[in-house]
Amino acid sequence: MLDRLLTDGKLAAACPSRVVLDHVTSKWGVLLLVALSERSMRWGELRRVVEGISEKMLAQTLRTLEADGIVDRAVTPSVPPRVDYSLTERGRDLVEHLLPLMGWIADNADDILAGR
Amino acid sequence: MLDRLLTDGKLAAACPSRVVLDHVTSKWGVLLLVALSERSMRWGELRRVVEGISEKMLAQTLRTLEADGIVDRAVTPSVPPRVDYSLTERGRDLVEHLLPLMGWIADNADDILAGR
Repeated sequence: MLDRLLTDGKLAAACPSRVVLDHVTSKWGVLLLVALSERSMRWGELRRVVEGISEKMLAQTLRTLEADGIVDRAVTPSVPPRVDYSLTERGRDLVEHLLPLMGWIADNADDILAGR
Repeated sequence: MLDRLLTDGKLAAACPSRVVLDHVTSKWGVLLLVALSERSMRWGELRRVVEGISEKMLAQTLRTLEADGIVDRAVTPSVPPRVDYSLTERGRDLVEHLLPLMGWIADNADDILAGR
């Protein structure tokens, strides 16, 4: 497993995997992916569900995930315009690999913090 | 799945899962876990394998993962003393849930960055 991520025996800083890892497991990236894992959401919903995210970090993280083809942004030309964010097919595939980790964390977080 | 992580419909900032998530998916935390997934390593090896990590961030991240019971620090009282870092049983269990995600990222990183 490690081999596939190594360049000259290192987890190289310039490796594409490291770049995408930073996007996907950024503090807010992972929470947005979890929030969108069940359904599409509007801006205000994401702000509410991902507690503590600033307008700036929400905008920036959604932009990164959109550029990565993981999140889709759909504008409905109503008045006012409605914007929905959802996972793309690639995003749904990614989240299937993320949710087992999130499940493990949910199952173990209390024990881990109690033991500190 | 989302339900287990939600408090009052939110991914609450004070939730234990959010705290542990920040430790485990921190920029350096995830790379240290991957590095230790195959074998124990000494300080200098971790510095070399996890390219770009500073002494300060290596110390801080290892301390956090040790306090979480995820990484074990073993000192051999030789001259000079030898210190080995390895995954605990909890850490190995965690990494089993992390490696599928890392595999997905390794498989998809080139396509993702090519599409940007």
